[in-house]
Amino acid sequence: MLNVGVIGYGYWGPNLVRNLSECEDTSVGVISDLRPERLALAKRRHPGATVTPDPRALLADPSLDAIVIATPVTSHFELVRLALESGKHVLVEKPLTQSVDQAKTLIDLALRTSRVLMVDHTFIYTGAVRKVKDILDSGDLGRVYYFDSVRVNLGLLQSDINVLWDLAPHDLSIMDYWLEKRPATVSAFGSSHVNGLEDIAYLTFLYQDNTIAHLHVNWLAPAKIRRIILGGSRKMAIYDDMEASEKVKVYDKGVVMSRAADPYQMLVQYRAGDMYAPQISTDEALRVECAHFVDCVTHGKRPVTDGEAGLRVVELLDAAGRSLRMGGVPQPL
Amino acid sequence: MLNVGVIGYGYWGPNLVRNLSECEDTSVGVISDLRPERLALAKRRHPGATVTPDPRALLADPSLDAIVIATPVTSHFELVRLALESGKHVLVEKPLTQSVDQAKTLIDLALRTSRVLMVDHTFIYTGAVRKVKDILDSGDLGRVYYFDSVRVNLGLLQSDINVLWDLAPHDLSIMDYWLEKRPATVSAFGSSHVNGLEDIAYLTFLYQDNTIAHLHVNWLAPAKIRRIILGGSRKMAIYDDMEASEKVKVYDKGVVMSRAADPYQMLVQYRAGDMYAPQISTDEALRVECAHFVDCVTHGKRPVTDGEAGLRVVELLDAAGRSLRMGGVPQPL
Amino acid sequence: MLNVGVIGYGYWGPNLVRNLSECEDTSVGVISDLRPERLALAKRRHPGATVTPDPRALLADPSLDAIVIATPVTSHFELVRLALESGKHVLVEKPLTQSVDQAKTLIDLALRTSRVLMVDHTFIYTGAVRKVKDILDSGDLGRVYYFDSVRVNLGLLQSDINVLWDLAPHDLSIMDYWLEKRPATVSAFGSSHVNGLEDIAYLTFLYQDNTIAHLHVNWLAPAKIRRIILGGSRKMAIYDDMEASEKVKVYDKGVVMSRAADPYQMLVQYRAGDMYAPQISTDEALRVECAHFVDCVTHGKRPVTDGEAGLRVVELLDAAGRSLRMGGVPQPL
Amino acid sequence: MLNVGVIGYGYWGPNLVRNLSECEDTSVGVISDLRPERLALAKRRHPGATVTPDPRALLADPSLDAIVIATPVTSHFELVRLALESGKHVLVEKPLTQSVDQAKTLIDLALRTSRVLMVDHTFIYTGAVRKVKDILDSGDLGRVYYFDSVRVNLGLLQSDINVLWDLAPHDLSIMDYWLEKRPATVSAFGSSHVNGLEDIAYLTFLYQDNTIAHLHVNWLAPAKIRRIILGGSRKMAIYDDMEASEKVKVYDKGVVMSRAADPYQMLVQYRAGDMYAPQISTDEALRVECAHFVDCVTHGKRPVTDGEAGLRVVELLDAAGRSLRMGGVPQPL
Repeated sequence: MLNVGVIGYGYWGPNLVRNLSECEDTSVGVISDLRPERLALAKRRHPGATVTPDPRALLADPSLDAIVIATPVTSHFELVRLALESGKHVLVEKPLTQSVDQAKTLIDLALRTSRVLMVDHTFIYTGAVRKVKDILDSGDLGRVYYFDSVRVNLGLLQSDINVLWDLAPHDLSIMDYWLEKRPATVSAFGSSHVNGLEDIAYLTFLYQDNTIAHLHVNWLAPAKIRRIILGGSRKMAIYDDMEASEKVKVYDKGVVMSRAADPYQMLVQYRAGDMYAPQISTDEALRVECAHFVDCVTHGKRPVTDGEAGLRVVELLDAAGRSLRMGGVPQPL
Repeated sequence: MLNVGVIGYGYWGPNLVRNLSECEDTSVGVISDLRPERLALAKRRHPGATVTPDPRALLADPSLDAIVIATPVTSHFELVRLALESGKHVLVEKPLTQSVDQAKTLIDLALRTSRVLMVDHTFIYTGAVRKVKDILDSGDLGRVYYFDSVRVNLGLLQSDINVLWDLAPHDLSIMDYWLEKRPATVSAFGSSHVNGLEDIAYLTFLYQDNTIAHLHVNWLAPAKIRRIILGGSRKMAIYDDMEASEKVKVYDKGVVMSRAADPYQMLVQYRAGDMYAPQISTDEALRVECAHFVDCVTHGKRPVTDGEAGLRVVELLDAAGRSLRMGGVPQPL
Repeated sequence: MLNVGVIGYGYWGPNLVRNLSECEDTSVGVISDLRPERLALAKRRHPGATVTPDPRALLADPSLDAIVIATPVTSHFELVRLALESGKHVLVEKPLTQSVDQAKTLIDLALRTSRVLMVDHTFIYTGAVRKVKDILDSGDLGRVYYFDSVRVNLGLLQSDINVLWDLAPHDLSIMDYWLEKRPATVSAFGSSHVNGLEDIAYLTFLYQDNTIAHLHVNWLAPAKIRRIILGGSRKMAIYDDMEASEKVKVYDKGVVMSRAADPYQMLVQYRAGDMYAPQISTDEALRVECAHFVDCVTHGKRPVTDGEAGLRVVELLDAAGRSLRMGGVPQPL
Repeated sequence: MLNVGVIGYGYWGPNLVRNLSECEDTSVGVISDLRPERLALAKRRHPGATVTPDPRALLADPSLDAIVIATPVTSHFELVRLALESGKHVLVEKPLTQSVDQAKTLIDLALRTSRVLMVDHTFIYTGAVRKVKDILDSGDLGRVYYFDSVRVNLGLLQSDINVLWDLAPHDLSIMDYWLEKRPATVSAFGSSHVNGLEDIAYLTFLYQDNTIAHLHVNWLAPAKIRRIILGGSRKMAIYDDMEASEKVKVYDKGVVMSRAADPYQMLVQYRAGDMYAPQISTDEALRVECAHFVDCVTHGKRPVTDGEAGLRVVELLDAAGRSLRMGGVPQPL
């Protein structure tokens, strides 16, 4: 039986508690939040759990094997560090930390303490993202020409981080998981219209091999769009998270150059065949992720979204943030 | 009765001939194309028109009052120049020219010859674009925070121009028409995967007043997306050209900061009210545009999409092209 | 503090328990289900509740004020009867009973025992259905010409009831709530292709005043469609429950006859104006409904979906079932 | 060279003239319409054609090989009869005639005069309808359980025919083409709210083999829906004509009964696999149809939509109309 403590019972914490509670051989023993009304709600929903306003109580609790951290990013580094030093396994909200150095420190610490350090890159555990990964691995799309992501909504403006650090981790973790390579440079543009923090940002990543990746993240959009297009040399795919079903569509479409009869002329040929939408697992991503965390802790496995994955996302955010502050000047990675 | 000659009977020319023929008091007297099979088709469809492979025959024809030019952009400058010098009024495909200097020369020439010079920025004549313009003018959206455009498709790759010069003129003409102000800088990124010309490009325009505009143009996309989002301080709008009806939606959504009771604290307030989709004229844009051209020629009026409008689009394209070649370095405008 | 017992912890029961637990001053004291594995799950999720395989234990439990019944329809009559006779208030799954007589008996019993009898017509408590009701009450649609409903999906075939009794209660409860009048006749057609029970059915209701209502319910459809169209003499509305937002759209469209200059001629005039999508409450319907039940019990109010509403739906189902068995012969109501 | 005369230059006639003009070795020699302004328009667009207000002039014109009739249905029988008797081949708008007897008379007459009699069931010539036919013929869907069609819009009310005779011919011709079998009975319900003719109708067709077909046709709907669902024993398909691309989707979904270990129990098994959208020809249907007519006339072939196909649709309309007038009483076919 794995006993877990959860720090942070705000927007995302309740989902983590609920899903951890449903995992096999797992219980949520302690829940912590600074706000009394959140603790009262947690207690009403989970009468069997202890609640406390003091996160350090969890770290000192020898009955807890693992700590799940769902607090604002500003507190991640300190809480993860303390948890690992207390000998706890850790699952922490995205992004892992606010800086590259912090992320590296935590990875080292997890290594030294032989604890699991996992980052909650939830989308990696969705049926859709995993299905696209399978399709990419099968070679069905050919070489990837571009990755184009749009994640916009009338979002909850954060008072401590801008839209880049709030929304882009989702897409950057997917990009990193799918493409499995590091971009060479990033340029970022944005503007802020409400509370002084960027509420709109555009990121462009260029790769050595000519792949281009682009992200649009936006808190001020009137409709919710969550769509990634992948253009490949053989086929193309669209992952539209707002589709009720058919979230992934693979198009047998493409353009190829071929040598014409006249050796000095190249012919452009268009190919347009069938589209198919693969059947996708409808398991709740957070359920899959929590089970994966429990499995990694129990059997000493390495998480798919481990500290290194968290670090890679922080590196991309960090460089993009620098470019953003410099008015879009490309930053090396 | 206005007698018009049309040069170029390829992809767009037939639409121009058909719509001009339906205009009041207008006839298409001569059609020109270099390819015999296109001339044969033109003759079959329009037995009353003369056809000729020589565009200069039209310029010399005293019975023609105006020339409509639907040829590749590389020939625009020369053909428009000759037509104006021959005393003809001119309607020319977008973009007006390949360079800023050429555009300025043509504007001067039209001024000196007192001829109408109009650029075929077709979208400006759609019911949807005009309706959004009305809404902007009414102040309903408040101050515009951003203009975000996506125009992607499995497009016909051009062998002489890249995707920037092929697709972006549509969105740049709309942006210019709606916002009525010049951006301060542009940055452009792109990549080319098929024929050596950029087939994907991302453009970011920054304005002095903090407005940001962004375009995504792409010839290698598996689905057709033509969507512009406008975020305003009061309301927001989406123009989705792929919608069969309800192309324009106006959302009573927004975010505002207000001073809380505690004078040191600002409150973020979200507003989400009704959405409405205004009734939009379904008149064919090209019909409206051709009638406007006839009206301008007949009554000596200034076209909405005159040479100056064409020049402004060429200036934006030119600066964006420079940034593209320099790897995204921002260019002043 | 209201103490509630829930009988049935299958598909819908967990949602009821969860929402009742979140209500103010309400607790779920006892949960019952015949299957041990469901009881174990209930216990894990709600350690504070007592679980029992015997529903009669709840009826005899003096600490319970109300019983919520989420069992197959075949057991509704007996369980509701016993609960009312035990002095408990009752909220029961739709449809209320399998026959008109049963429904009338329960209404009488609730009256005699002065207990609340409420039927779980969940859709009545959605923001969308309530908003349409407001619009209808405002007269904005004018006189309703027709009600056209489609509710299809690859559904879970029930082994005890056909698609009519499984899906149609949703639409019939909405129809009854919106139109507030009884149809004169019903005709029903269907066919069964899998397990001997009708898996497709079409119902047509004719009203004295020329209104027509039609339902299509289908367990064998490849995509999920849940859409109701209302045609009115002034405006028209569409309620599409599969839309993520904009579930209700009101169209300023219509057709009217007017007398032409020539007195012997009538002119048909079409009107097409703006469409608007009203802002809709996103409160979970079941939460609203549970709170309403608690309020009715606590303050002796009459539920919106009381026994009479349940009876009216059973009457429509009963007559439609008769027509279905007779090959579509219209049945009076 | 085939010389064709066209009678009727209203809504549909111009499309026929345009497409016939584009056919190989085909010319439109004469166009007729009773309204002078329509004739003037025809003359402006087609200066090479003769125009006349008198349809009989076409019948007597020995230079015309074929007559295309695009007039109101009330005139079809007389005009087709005269054309065939004049030795002309005939392509006539749907529906073929107003009565079964008329249709039979024309079929006999075409047989006796050895002329081609073809009915303009345009949808049969669309890429989508033909693709679904191929899929059905391949057996991919298995046995067809049901055919469910919705064709609704804010339509142009006809003053001489109701919505049944105006819209249902489209769906009935598709149903007849796809299913290739005759229903046993039809029941029809409708109501009229504007000009005394039914503007809404629901048709249910039952087949001997348990297939059920249903049509909803409606002139008073706020949005345009044109969608047919086919449920099969192996797969299911949706043809949505309002989709810009992906008009046909084939779902690997189904429900099957299988014998469980316990011989007295049947298990319901659900199958949900991939969906695919086959590539579909985007050729204009009317172009394909006109070429087919020219081919049939030139080479003495039998049209896919011959007089017999026209008769079958009229028989279905006729029986449905009878049921409609009798309040839905099922009519044998």
